[in-house]
Amino acid sequence: MEVLKVSASSKPGLVAGALAAVIREEGTVEMQTIGAGALNQAIKAIAIARGFVAPSGIDIYCIPAFTDIEIGGEKRTAIKLIVESKK
Amino acid sequence: MEVLKVSASSKPGLVAGALAAVIREEGTVEMQTIGAGALNQAIKAIAIARGFVAPSGIDIYCIPAFTDIEIGGEKRTAIKLIVESKK
Repeated sequence: MEVLKVSASSKPGLVAGALAAVIREEGTVEMQTIGAGALNQAIKAIAIARGFVAPSGIDIYCIPAFTDIEIGGEKRTAIKLIVESKK
Repeated sequence: MEVLKVSASSKPGLVAGALAAVIREEGTVEMQTIGAGALNQAIKAIAIARGFVAPSGIDIYCIPAFTDIEIGGEKRTAIKLIVESKK
């Protein structure tokens, strides 16, 4: 599954475009976020992307989950959002 | 639809319990958040609640959307999360 890493400085509109493109190609995508700011941008991107794909009859939703990642030898808990399409 | 208002100081475990209870009763619930901190707690609550309801064969997901709310005469953009069950 393709993974989109989203940070607090990511622009939701741009992430939404990438998200919509992957959803159209593969039907599913995973977004990875660390921290509240990054999660905020990722969720906004999903809301915006819903508008991009809805005219094509694609209805997307997300499944949030915890995931452990390692950054510079340190373990951090990240939140991943698995985005899928209803159709 | 029942609305759960989540703030940055809400405890994800407690919100998850409330979420799971409403999902079992009504099959759907709306969460309302203002700000990245509140959204963070709401998303964590959904991830935790997935574990609460999964043993009963209930698989939940969320649909993020923008919504305008008024607080003390001021308009704010909030993010609502519509939580639904796949079955």
